[in-house]
Amino acid sequence: MNDVQILKVATAAPSDVSATDELRERGYSPADVVAVVGKTEGNGCVNDFSRGLASLAWGAVLPAGAVAVMSGGTEGVLSPHVTLLVRCRDDEEPTGLRAAAVVTDPVAKADVGRRPQAEAVADAVRTALADAGLEPDEVDLVLVKCPLLTSADVAACLAAGTPAVTADTYESMAHSRGASALGVALALGECSSAQVDEALAGLRQVWSATASMSSGAEVDGCHVLVLGSSGAGRLRMRHTVMSDALDARSVLDELELIRDASGVVRQVFAKAEADPGGTVRGHRHTMLTDSDLHSTRHARAAVGGLLAGLVGDPALYVSGGAENQGPPGGGPVAIVYEVP
Amino acid sequence: MNDVQILKVATAAPSDVSATDELRERGYSPADVVAVVGKTEGNGCVNDFSRGLASLAWGAVLPAGAVAVMSGGTEGVLSPHVTLLVRCRDDEEPTGLRAAAVVTDPVAKADVGRRPQAEAVADAVRTALADAGLEPDEVDLVLVKCPLLTSADVAACLAAGTPAVTADTYESMAHSRGASALGVALALGECSSAQVDEALAGLRQVWSATASMSSGAEVDGCHVLVLGSSGAGRLRMRHTVMSDALDARSVLDELELIRDASGVVRQVFAKAEADPGGTVRGHRHTMLTDSDLHSTRHARAAVGGLLAGLVGDPALYVSGGAENQGPPGGGPVAIVYEVP
Amino acid sequence: MNDVQILKVATAAPSDVSATDELRERGYSPADVVAVVGKTEGNGCVNDFSRGLASLAWGAVLPAGAVAVMSGGTEGVLSPHVTLLVRCRDDEEPTGLRAAAVVTDPVAKADVGRRPQAEAVADAVRTALADAGLEPDEVDLVLVKCPLLTSADVAACLAAGTPAVTADTYESMAHSRGASALGVALALGECSSAQVDEALAGLRQVWSATASMSSGAEVDGCHVLVLGSSGAGRLRMRHTVMSDALDARSVLDELELIRDASGVVRQVFAKAEADPGGTVRGHRHTMLTDSDLHSTRHARAAVGGLLAGLVGDPALYVSGGAENQGPPGGGPVAIVYEVP
Amino acid sequence: MNDVQILKVATAAPSDVSATDELRERGYSPADVVAVVGKTEGNGCVNDFSRGLASLAWGAVLPAGAVAVMSGGTEGVLSPHVTLLVRCRDDEEPTGLRAAAVVTDPVAKADVGRRPQAEAVADAVRTALADAGLEPDEVDLVLVKCPLLTSADVAACLAAGTPAVTADTYESMAHSRGASALGVALALGECSSAQVDEALAGLRQVWSATASMSSGAEVDGCHVLVLGSSGAGRLRMRHTVMSDALDARSVLDELELIRDASGVVRQVFAKAEADPGGTVRGHRHTMLTDSDLHSTRHARAAVGGLLAGLVGDPALYVSGGAENQGPPGGGPVAIVYEVP
Repeated sequence: MNDVQILKVATAAPSDVSATDELRERGYSPADVVAVVGKTEGNGCVNDFSRGLASLAWGAVLPAGAVAVMSGGTEGVLSPHVTLLVRCRDDEEPTGLRAAAVVTDPVAKADVGRRPQAEAVADAVRTALADAGLEPDEVDLVLVKCPLLTSADVAACLAAGTPAVTADTYESMAHSRGASALGVALALGECSSAQVDEALAGLRQVWSATASMSSGAEVDGCHVLVLGSSGAGRLRMRHTVMSDALDARSVLDELELIRDASGVVRQVFAKAEADPGGTVRGHRHTMLTDSDLHSTRHARAAVGGLLAGLVGDPALYVSGGAENQGPPGGGPVAIVYEVP
Repeated sequence: MNDVQILKVATAAPSDVSATDELRERGYSPADVVAVVGKTEGNGCVNDFSRGLASLAWGAVLPAGAVAVMSGGTEGVLSPHVTLLVRCRDDEEPTGLRAAAVVTDPVAKADVGRRPQAEAVADAVRTALADAGLEPDEVDLVLVKCPLLTSADVAACLAAGTPAVTADTYESMAHSRGASALGVALALGECSSAQVDEALAGLRQVWSATASMSSGAEVDGCHVLVLGSSGAGRLRMRHTVMSDALDARSVLDELELIRDASGVVRQVFAKAEADPGGTVRGHRHTMLTDSDLHSTRHARAAVGGLLAGLVGDPALYVSGGAENQGPPGGGPVAIVYEVP
Repeated sequence: MNDVQILKVATAAPSDVSATDELRERGYSPADVVAVVGKTEGNGCVNDFSRGLASLAWGAVLPAGAVAVMSGGTEGVLSPHVTLLVRCRDDEEPTGLRAAAVVTDPVAKADVGRRPQAEAVADAVRTALADAGLEPDEVDLVLVKCPLLTSADVAACLAAGTPAVTADTYESMAHSRGASALGVALALGECSSAQVDEALAGLRQVWSATASMSSGAEVDGCHVLVLGSSGAGRLRMRHTVMSDALDARSVLDELELIRDASGVVRQVFAKAEADPGGTVRGHRHTMLTDSDLHSTRHARAAVGGLLAGLVGDPALYVSGGAENQGPPGGGPVAIVYEVP
Repeated sequence: MNDVQILKVATAAPSDVSATDELRERGYSPADVVAVVGKTEGNGCVNDFSRGLASLAWGAVLPAGAVAVMSGGTEGVLSPHVTLLVRCRDDEEPTGLRAAAVVTDPVAKADVGRRPQAEAVADAVRTALADAGLEPDEVDLVLVKCPLLTSADVAACLAAGTPAVTADTYESMAHSRGASALGVALALGECSSAQVDEALAGLRQVWSATASMSSGAEVDGCHVLVLGSSGAGRLRMRHTVMSDALDARSVLDELELIRDASGVVRQVFAKAEADPGGTVRGHRHTMLTDSDLHSTRHARAAVGGLLAGLVGDPALYVSGGAENQGPPGGGPVAIVYEVP
């Protein structure tokens, strides 16, 4: 079984890997890290080099096979940090938190945002489930870091006669997140193979309730991390879906259940997005008409502000762009907590 | 007595004054409007022309003496709207909500952010209190729209031998808000005259608990609106202070008290800012090191996301930059609600 | 004949219409204005309210039938100003500069960026040519202000079963400019009707050498202004096409010809855009991968900096987004000059 | 003597160090690199992590003592690239281009933007001059990479009772550039010691004609690179000063002299800034009132557009923020060229 500890450490900069010191102080080794999941302080969009900087720095200290999911954007109160998932020591009680990581082959640029990417992710999820010792219905979170398209990629695809899924580099991030999320949904039985195609063609109502996708130029393949709990140890997970960006209720309900169990929240993983219809509960929002600030930045700031206020902690993993991750305008929320 | 009705109407654009139609449908006349308080969809900073556009459009339909407080910035889920405060009809039960508006003389550019501006605002507040029939301790909200400095203003001050309070146009907004807030605090007895000087010299611990200041290039004088409730009618107010941007607790407490009174929230007026120390509850935030996005935009998005989620309504008045309006990193919150 | 004077006046703000004072001082009346063409200091993108503010202010002083083409974006050294084209007085020598303006019916939102918009513009250009007394080959500049799509427009189209040309509001500006430019090209015989369809389907190699299109939320129809010179008076025009954003040569050649004629440049109208292939003369540019700053802003700043330096005047009309206006990455440049 | 070759290589990303391959192909070793001077594609402001990413990547391949001056911001047509200065091989004719690099001790945060920083830079320049075998009047360019202040630095200074030169992180970049430039001016005899103090107190009229300063969070000390030519070899330098952002004339004059000498431009190093008075040649610019886009980005785009057009090459080193580097609103331009 792949039981893991969870360790959340503040970072002073994207290149800050001093969390490994804290790891050692607690008796773990960087060699046992399964995954590092970070929020870095870039714009979370195409030209976010904070992710690449963090990935380069962590690449030097992590073992082969470990995945780094660096998500850019700590708008508003969100605070830069890393969450380390590290294999339990042999001398340690299993935590009950289970994780496994898989990196796919590089995705051909012409395949980004398309069926082959979804299938590669689905295969990786299935492998990770087996590695982690988790059944599909025990999964609370699937984090994927997936590639995007740069201007050079778009041009290369065009030259090769296989036009990219979009010529807009910012839009390519959404397509990549969407395809990955559909791969997760497929692997977890949340949708059919036919629905994947419909969703890739634009149908937004196909989604996974545990997928949290992030795209970036710092990866060529998809880095897949599966997380769930056996329910047997002190670390537990719950997940829910915010129906829209105002849905405090769903989260408060979960927090109350955790409090009832005398649990303490260790980390929250959430997705956020601007409702694609341009309104929230019938009120016009301006996230899609703001040409100075991309909607993913707006959404992270707003939902991050809400969740940080509800949990009382701004060092949360809130990631923007929830295509096929929860209903349009909403997004999945997964919570790791510890019981006495 | 100056009892007023409150009417909140969505706007389709900054120039949208169709709220006057709704006003008429409800039997009121634009001539009876005391104030229009709007959230417009610009950046809320120096070059926010959505405020000017709204002010120009409303100027054509409002009576002389009415004030227009247009606050830019509907980041995240915040939804553009206007709140109209309109004098009760003679045939109508007094609402118990009391308001008065005063416009000061133009503030000399060399005085922006300095003592003369504070005193002009203090005088205006005192006049408005008398007009509204409110005692200082009955006040729940003082909204002020005050000027800023453009490059031309800075250059003119320099040429005249009276350098402006700052040469940075964005910073001038903060100085103007601060001086106005200190004027409010002075008029309401929240600080001494000597403390105003200390605060203007940089001391942040002097603040008003009901001041909500907004600066913009669309005004030369200060537009001052005082709001409070007599406690006798169906419209009531409460106010609190968020101690920081995560302080959901203070707001939830107020909402609970309102719910206990079977009250329905009609509008929320809040200020938000990035903690000037660079941290929230000990966690580093990045609002002050983000050169792509000013901290006021970050703060509005985050606190707006929190309040909108708590209240379940994104058409709230959340304004950025809370210098001397609540404690550093926090800000006042005023709530208008209706009881049966 | 529609001979006009040209008057360029600096503006202190988007709402500044004091140019009408200068007009009167020179013996003209605002009632004789054919068109006002302005550069306003917004972002030139979807949420640029400086254009709307200027249009509202000018709408109050211009005669019916006059067009206002407000182009947002004065990045870099570009300086906000308006250019007035005003009918010559009867007691005045004809200038030789000819202009006519036509406003089309509102463009249905589902037609924005599509064939019907192109045809409406083509009809308007033909009408304007006749009004101005210009043959197609005498035209040096066709300026068009055309609509864009907001989130609400996109949603309304979708609800009506006629999806908009794009769901991305910023992209809608490009589609609208492209369709308008193709209308100009069609009317001036620069392309065939079949080529319009090919170009609307994505073929960039169809373009007009005198079209300068600007889109904005402040118009519902297309405002079309045609400009050319008879060659008989003191005001003359020349036009060229920059092959890319580095093409100083083409402009220097025109300036030299003007200098040889003892001419003095009165105004320059230019279009600029990021090369859609992601490179300029084989060198990678980053305008299309900058998620903080749209490529139209980059392009205006760069080409504006070049032209202002070459001409020695930063109050030039440089507009961003040159779809079907000159070759990909380049753009038309029209110069009005005065000879002794 | 420290004769060096100059090699300019395009980069595909900030982390791209493949220029070392080209170096080797030409018979040089990375161990002989004196300095790498890069333009990276970040925002060039406080949170520009492209510089840190490039510095981290280059740090792994450069020898100790070599300096990396990474300047963020390739707005408009500017193209990301690195310029390598590498010691001539023993079997090679001396080029006549001379360079030396010195790294100062870390600058205490309380000293950033103040006299001690200026003096540390002055000392480093003197050492570099001796190393390079250059007299002060033979210097054509002094490049310095110097630190900035983050929120954490500002807070730490305050806590230590030695307030930082400014609490505004973006402004700290300007103070740091200014102090460094004054150190250059002092070392080269362009100003007196007393003038350094006057300039640090705000006098802009003290400046160096060859200083090109860039600040960033990726350094703690100042990285100083001195460049000049002996006039004896095939590589030569010229330098001039643009009096403002429209000053194409000064540059065209230099280019003509180079052309007269049958020279070919190898690289241009220029500084650009928004005129602090808010106007260019009497025309209002909007770079200082644009709250969406910092003035350094505007200035780089505009001057970069002009220089790239004049030279016909967008892979130029154009850096923003020219405090005490040339006259207010202008900036130094240094050109390396090769004669037959």
